[in-house]
Amino acid sequence: MSDTRDWHNLVITFDSDGLEVLASAASAAVESLRRPPSGPRSNWTPAALHHLVTSLEICPDEGINLNTVLAELGFVVWSHGVVPSDPACVAHLHPPTLVPAVVTELAIAASNQSMDSWDQSPAATEVELHLMRWLADLIGFPETGSGVMTSGGTASNVLAMTLARSWAAKKLGVDVLKTGLPPEAASWRILCSDQAHFSVQRAAAQLGLGRDSVTTVETTSSGAMEVAALDRVLIEMTRTGLEPIAIVATAGTTDLGAVDPLSEIAQRARRHDAWLHVDAAVAGAFLLSDRLGPALSGIELADSVTVDFHKLWWQPFNASALVIRDAERFDLLRVKSNYLDRGDELEGVVNLVGRSLDTSRRFDAAKVVATLRTLGRLALAEMLEHLVDLSRYAGSVIESHPQLELIATPTSVMCVFSAPDVSDDDLRHVQQRLLARGEMVLGRTMIKDRATLKFTFMNPLATTDDVDRLVILVASELNTL
Amino acid sequence: MSDTRDWHNLVITFDSDGLEVLASAASAAVESLRRPPSGPRSNWTPAALHHLVTSLEICPDEGINLNTVLAELGFVVWSHGVVPSDPACVAHLHPPTLVPAVVTELAIAASNQSMDSWDQSPAATEVELHLMRWLADLIGFPETGSGVMTSGGTASNVLAMTLARSWAAKKLGVDVLKTGLPPEAASWRILCSDQAHFSVQRAAAQLGLGRDSVTTVETTSSGAMEVAALDRVLIEMTRTGLEPIAIVATAGTTDLGAVDPLSEIAQRARRHDAWLHVDAAVAGAFLLSDRLGPALSGIELADSVTVDFHKLWWQPFNASALVIRDAERFDLLRVKSNYLDRGDELEGVVNLVGRSLDTSRRFDAAKVVATLRTLGRLALAEMLEHLVDLSRYAGSVIESHPQLELIATPTSVMCVFSAPDVSDDDLRHVQQRLLARGEMVLGRTMIKDRATLKFTFMNPLATTDDVDRLVILVASELNTL
Repeated sequence: MSDTRDWHNLVITFDSDGLEVLASAASAAVESLRRPPSGPRSNWTPAALHHLVTSLEICPDEGINLNTVLAELGFVVWSHGVVPSDPACVAHLHPPTLVPAVVTELAIAASNQSMDSWDQSPAATEVELHLMRWLADLIGFPETGSGVMTSGGTASNVLAMTLARSWAAKKLGVDVLKTGLPPEAASWRILCSDQAHFSVQRAAAQLGLGRDSVTTVETTSSGAMEVAALDRVLIEMTRTGLEPIAIVATAGTTDLGAVDPLSEIAQRARRHDAWLHVDAAVAGAFLLSDRLGPALSGIELADSVTVDFHKLWWQPFNASALVIRDAERFDLLRVKSNYLDRGDELEGVVNLVGRSLDTSRRFDAAKVVATLRTLGRLALAEMLEHLVDLSRYAGSVIESHPQLELIATPTSVMCVFSAPDVSDDDLRHVQQRLLARGEMVLGRTMIKDRATLKFTFMNPLATTDDVDRLVILVASELNTL
Repeated sequence: MSDTRDWHNLVITFDSDGLEVLASAASAAVESLRRPPSGPRSNWTPAALHHLVTSLEICPDEGINLNTVLAELGFVVWSHGVVPSDPACVAHLHPPTLVPAVVTELAIAASNQSMDSWDQSPAATEVELHLMRWLADLIGFPETGSGVMTSGGTASNVLAMTLARSWAAKKLGVDVLKTGLPPEAASWRILCSDQAHFSVQRAAAQLGLGRDSVTTVETTSSGAMEVAALDRVLIEMTRTGLEPIAIVATAGTTDLGAVDPLSEIAQRARRHDAWLHVDAAVAGAFLLSDRLGPALSGIELADSVTVDFHKLWWQPFNASALVIRDAERFDLLRVKSNYLDRGDELEGVVNLVGRSLDTSRRFDAAKVVATLRTLGRLALAEMLEHLVDLSRYAGSVIESHPQLELIATPTSVMCVFSAPDVSDDDLRHVQQRLLARGEMVLGRTMIKDRATLKFTFMNPLATTDDVDRLVILVASELNTL
């Protein structure tokens, strides 16, 4: 048989020799990230990057020294990445990450617990459950509340809609996961606002209901669902025999950061026996702040809530959670397998595969816990409040700027604006030129069929001076049109 | 406005100060992993671990020193984890991880590129595409082949079945993602062997077809799909008006590691115009080895292939890929959104959200590339061959052992066995006691309705001496019954 000797410096072990190798390689990986402060991204074109990257041989027959490989990733990849901690990186809900989370990722990868079964993650399973219970408390759920970590807000929303679909089918005596969609499903509808995330449509598409089963409800100019419009839709559905199986309320829309009127929507959901899901991927973190939290009042009335730790909790991708009011409803999903979750385990064993649409799953809960314990609630709340303040400041600067027009007063970390008398195409050129030159990664979206630009402030280190500079950059670019 | 000064040591930056903080924290994280060689897991009960973990306050108001938090994670979590590099950790396809991958995870988390849109991951998008092209080549796909990284084999299989469902609907002129399942879907069937992974059923459940739409085909005693049985099922389907929209062949079953006869299945799929998906989550890595690769002959005839890098490529969770023969078929999924993938980008820009069921998505491709370049193909192949040899050795030891019975000759990294005249319950007790005492994390499964035990060899550092010891441990435990 072949010799295992050569592999001791490659396979992670937790003895002194193994940790020494790991520590030294970790230093080299950190060093590979070094770059001069040169803006949010390099000015290389897609074609030039394609050429650079494809010059790497993915898998040579003979390996290359690790330090060389890491250094090469540095100059080929990291130096041509987007820098989320650059104050001019303001396009998306794309955060810079926090030191406790990043170094815990190293430990997560080294220990490689898998969250599907307890015998692959004994303590880790308890940590995830403990975090989920804490989050359920923060939301205001009763003691029955718990959740599961997922790979993102889209996955959390898909899981919520999967549960809602099973719940609706169960009322008909149908196990939809077993026998498929019943004929009644043709009349099932999912309601959300016209500013809800497109993952609601994606979930409906995935579940076999189709995007057309999603009925969107009009929003106010601030981007929040209009309750009167919701009532009109519900009355019309009753009249035409359609069944609202789920209402998705958004706590923090992607573009305007609006929070739907949760308590009023909850009343309607209760009345129509519809599953109430709150997509708080964006604004869930507000619950940490005494100042910002009250905006989410009513979230405790939901059946399920999406929270994205990889947004305003500054966690590396991916880290999202779906929390549900009554953890027993996860039984709607459960399928036994011969090798996992057989239901005949040691006393006290929980196999989280029963709550998840994934099987193998990484221990992302560890980085979230490391972050929460290191920073504490007050520091996280202050960082968040700072970004909301920054966004409001940007709003006031834009409002008083002769060339720019504020679309809505910021209430979250986004600031959406436009320029009067500038065409949609020209706004696009502004965004693309700043991106192409590597000067700013600026957001661009459509609000009520109108092209707009968008700042999304995710970087706690950004200041009002940075905002001033960003506004000047955009205005100068508009002047070159 | 609040002061940002205090946060400079918390938010990741790539200047000297930021990297110094990161390097020092990374060292502490590495140190937190240190543990004496004390077996594959601690002997703490689920109840004791629950008590230990829930004694941590998840989010105190005031933060705690990072080094304290990391050390605490060490003694509360990592020291009560499962150690995949312990030779007695043999239950699941749960690998120890490799140094290049683990330290690249740190860089992935620090740079936090998001793979949904190019303006969050310019070079990273090119790296993922380059890796997917290489994998398509390795599979033997034509130049049209490409893929996307997913969070696991289950997600890859769900994505494949999503494409297969859209493809079947398209033939009827239906856009199933838009309008939902057509009435014809009641006759759609997905075929796989009775040893296929349960994620095939999960995908059918998720897609609204229901688990009952999955028809399983009998397998030989080695666990591979029986072609004659497949033919019988297909004939019966034609007779009864059912439509096989997809056939899922398995390259490496979870329990026996069997590879279905891919070429023969491909012929049948072609003849019935069914989507051929090969779930090579387990055995995909065999393609790296000149010796093991030929077992997968015919894989190049598939429409789509799942490969799990977090199995026999020793990557930390999560890292899977779905590769498809014709990348244009990803258009079956595509939905435009206002803020991502608008279709009016800079020339050459690719937004990978168009290929994925996720939105935000981490840059897992980086760790795979770092690993492939550092080890090279030949070393990876040798590690794999060593594990297959080890599994065969285990098979021979068990075969000649008076108390044990080999269920099938190992051809992959698993070795499934039983003990004559020992009840299913007693076999369970053997597994549970070894787990409870922290002596062995042993696999347990059902083969043809019979309880069995299972070794899964994932650790390249394991030796034949380790195998001898494992067999003795199991036999001794049987003697105590």
